[in-house]
Amino acid sequence: EQEYDDEGNLVICRLSAKRKVTIQNFRGANLVSIREYYYDGGAERPTTKGISLNEEQWSTLRKNIPAIEKAVKDMQDRDM
Amino acid sequence: EQEYDDEGNLVICRLSAKRKVTIQNFRGANLVSIREYYYDGGAERPTTKGISLNEEQWSTLRKNIPAIEKAVKDMQDRDM
Repeated sequence: EQEYDDEGNLVICRLSAKRKVTIQNFRGANLVSIREYYYDGGAERPTTKGISLNEEQWSTLRKNIPAIEKAVKDMQDRDM
Repeated sequence: EQEYDDEGNLVICRLSAKRKVTIQNFRGANLVSIREYYYDGGAERPTTKGISLNEEQWSTLRKNIPAIEKAVKDMQDRDM
């Protein structure tokens, strides 16, 4: 049921054809990776365009989601 | 009250000393940027280590937060 990518990381979702969110286990730590990939032959390989967040960084991002939502909405309102 | 960085983007939060979440306006579109910065003299400049999500990608990420949380928790439980 769970999908793993060509790097062996758990795929949470795709954000676009080339971008996806995965969970990586790096030296015992879980990282939430938001990254762009490219195709190398048949395999999907990570690019440097992306960021892997440790649990503390992910937790900080998560807590700030209302602030992000508000900022995006404020900008949309201003653009109208 | 709102903080803007050296690139003129709205700072939502810092994830670490070098990483932050900002809202960029790029050609009329709002991007949620999660990125690492470096210091160039006194100014903070973006590195390629990071990703800027358009509103659709951000929306997809946001909807998948419960799945990310579950995956991180499952891995923590497995590690214990």
